[in-house]
Amino acid sequence: MNLEPILAETLDAATKGYPLSSPALPISAIAAQRWSLFAGDLPLPLAVIRDSALAHNHAWMRDFTASTGVLLAPHGKTTMAPQIFSQQLAAGAWGITVANVQQLGICVRFGVRRVIMANQLLGRAEVGAVIRLQAAHPDLEFHFLIDSQAQLAAIESVAASQPQSRKLTALVELGLPGGRTGARTFDEAIAVARSVTASRAVALAGLECYEGLQITGDSGRDEIVVAGLMQRVHDVALACDREGLFAGPSIILTAGGSAAFDIVARDLPMKLSQPVLTILRSGCYVTHDSGFYNRMLEGVKARSGATWQSRPGLQPALEVWSRVQSCPEAGLAILTMGKRDASFDLEMPIASKRYRPGIDTVPQPAPASWKIASMNDQHAYLRFSVDADAAPQVGDLVGCGISHPCTTFDKWRALFTVDDGYRVTGAIRTFF
Amino acid sequence: MNLEPILAETLDAATKGYPLSSPALPISAIAAQRWSLFAGDLPLPLAVIRDSALAHNHAWMRDFTASTGVLLAPHGKTTMAPQIFSQQLAAGAWGITVANVQQLGICVRFGVRRVIMANQLLGRAEVGAVIRLQAAHPDLEFHFLIDSQAQLAAIESVAASQPQSRKLTALVELGLPGGRTGARTFDEAIAVARSVTASRAVALAGLECYEGLQITGDSGRDEIVVAGLMQRVHDVALACDREGLFAGPSIILTAGGSAAFDIVARDLPMKLSQPVLTILRSGCYVTHDSGFYNRMLEGVKARSGATWQSRPGLQPALEVWSRVQSCPEAGLAILTMGKRDASFDLEMPIASKRYRPGIDTVPQPAPASWKIASMNDQHAYLRFSVDADAAPQVGDLVGCGISHPCTTFDKWRALFTVDDGYRVTGAIRTFF
Repeated sequence: MNLEPILAETLDAATKGYPLSSPALPISAIAAQRWSLFAGDLPLPLAVIRDSALAHNHAWMRDFTASTGVLLAPHGKTTMAPQIFSQQLAAGAWGITVANVQQLGICVRFGVRRVIMANQLLGRAEVGAVIRLQAAHPDLEFHFLIDSQAQLAAIESVAASQPQSRKLTALVELGLPGGRTGARTFDEAIAVARSVTASRAVALAGLECYEGLQITGDSGRDEIVVAGLMQRVHDVALACDREGLFAGPSIILTAGGSAAFDIVARDLPMKLSQPVLTILRSGCYVTHDSGFYNRMLEGVKARSGATWQSRPGLQPALEVWSRVQSCPEAGLAILTMGKRDASFDLEMPIASKRYRPGIDTVPQPAPASWKIASMNDQHAYLRFSVDADAAPQVGDLVGCGISHPCTTFDKWRALFTVDDGYRVTGAIRTFF
Repeated sequence: MNLEPILAETLDAATKGYPLSSPALPISAIAAQRWSLFAGDLPLPLAVIRDSALAHNHAWMRDFTASTGVLLAPHGKTTMAPQIFSQQLAAGAWGITVANVQQLGICVRFGVRRVIMANQLLGRAEVGAVIRLQAAHPDLEFHFLIDSQAQLAAIESVAASQPQSRKLTALVELGLPGGRTGARTFDEAIAVARSVTASRAVALAGLECYEGLQITGDSGRDEIVVAGLMQRVHDVALACDREGLFAGPSIILTAGGSAAFDIVARDLPMKLSQPVLTILRSGCYVTHDSGFYNRMLEGVKARSGATWQSRPGLQPALEVWSRVQSCPEAGLAILTMGKRDASFDLEMPIASKRYRPGIDTVPQPAPASWKIASMNDQHAYLRFSVDADAAPQVGDLVGCGISHPCTTFDKWRALFTVDDGYRVTGAIRTFF
């Protein structure tokens, strides 16, 4: 990858989180500033990524996928940060997954050359852009999802009007009744696969499904649901293989969010007449979280045997820090952080650390009673037990873990990385 | 204001919504491209602002505030778009409201010179930045909120370490029990006001409160709550005025979100010993919405007499368009739009328009049964009645109104403005 354009990009205080009175700096020069969260160098709220946790998570997932023999194309929509994509590829990832063609464009621009779009391709602008990217980059391997003949017809209609350097390549998506996208039945999936194989514009590269929306944390139930879905993939894959529908020379089978990737890694691999690439697409593992995915990790570890139970699991790397701006009544503190700054779609941020300027030298664990009860656009409501002796004070810094990294990353154009002393070590640019 | 730096800024397909295969262009050159949503020039999802509705809303609020005699400092946090701030000032706004010092910095950078920060000022980086901005811009009038002596002490501690070109100026915030920030009682408010007046670093410019979190749409109840809060402002203002606590030469009284600004405009004005500036801070009016604020507008109109009831009200100017990517089972269509693209914090987007490429020449009203039931990060679930004859089809474009503009603006680094035929007329840059 080529991250030079990002490292050369200049940030200034127009970007949320950048020191208000510092001059504009290229991203490559930020680490040398040694800005300190606790010295008050940085405005709040501030989203930070802890370097040590990020490095730990890269290594953890590298080892996990290596131990299971599956490939990884981490979902890039989580971070939309080419700097993190580069780390993921350096840690052994096969490619990057994206959600739409704009995200594909970001990958290609910075040098990713294997991309899965875990979504249906459609639209004159989008199909045309993919055709042009394939022509401009002969080394680009790109696969998108298809789940209907209507979609195929729409793609063919655009493709007919412009020269293709090579065929587009698609993965037939299998879906679940009551679920999201994807062919609901064996017959529908086979019918779409046959149509793709017959297409002049598109070739069949493999099959895809997504189990993540079904995961509840009830491990017994989750295993049954995921195993059932993987079995459906096997059934369709065998039938397609027997019919010679796959274009080859290898066949992609891909599934896997961040909640039950271990079951996918165990149950998705299979043998077919051509080499099978079994690809996980987990995205959230990279920063992990302090909420939903942290709970789901317990199931992953419990299902993965003694080695993975004894080894430290994924660590929450993403935190949003804010300040107590008001303690207006008993049991309530208001923080300078809101719906613009931290995820709130699955649950509220989790108050986990406190730093009292002038008193603390290192962050302290937040008292157990501290809970973010709700957020407005720019405020959070921290509730706490009035019986406890650790009431927040105006001016305190509060560090929150988040639940669901995707919806925190998209609120920041740049996130600072920090060392364990919360000094800034760099900036990660996002492209939303 | 000076918008030249924005108009000269180059956008390209790294920005969500920008045409994928178009070369980079300065914002000033975008209108001439005449990109058409319905011709398929633009990738989806796409947030657009309808020029005609935006202009209507500017005129409506200009006339409303003029008719009531109050001033307007619209909350800039809604859009964080200096181009829209400039339109608001051109339409007669007194100044701009912001939520934090980063947002103040954006205002100052592009030439706004009257700013209210409807939030507590705190923090070494933040207080220092305000002192430096005041020194660098002698014409900058800036007021922030204060609601505790602890906050004042923290500000004084920072101010003591650096020379101030002039005093900071604060508005004492009055809050409601069970509410957000703000002094809860008369005595607390007076005590904070006295401390401010005695401060060497800060002067007392007026009083502030925010009624918006209390508004339910039950007009009788809302009138009582708001009138009661305004009465509390009057009580504290009179007492402060009698004690000579206000620094003068004028006194600011400010309140007003976008849900009941008419009651504020009616009940907040009062006479004191120095001229009173009564300032509304409504922000959402500028694009209005198709959900919460559209419902609240009914109350505003009903309370505002025959002229405002017969005149067309605020219009929803902000829409997010996406495409039907899959119709996987009866009654369900999946759209290429999700939590990254459209507000979901108050309610789901409102499917209001449909455009079928190749069939429609203008957008059609969406069938009444179409409802966005939920969203994932990058997908929306459109449910519809299978009995109706207007089922969506793969490839259809769906235009959604949104509820709560703030949480859609912050998902887009640039939003295109469009004419009534949905051709792009420009780009509005946001600074989140």
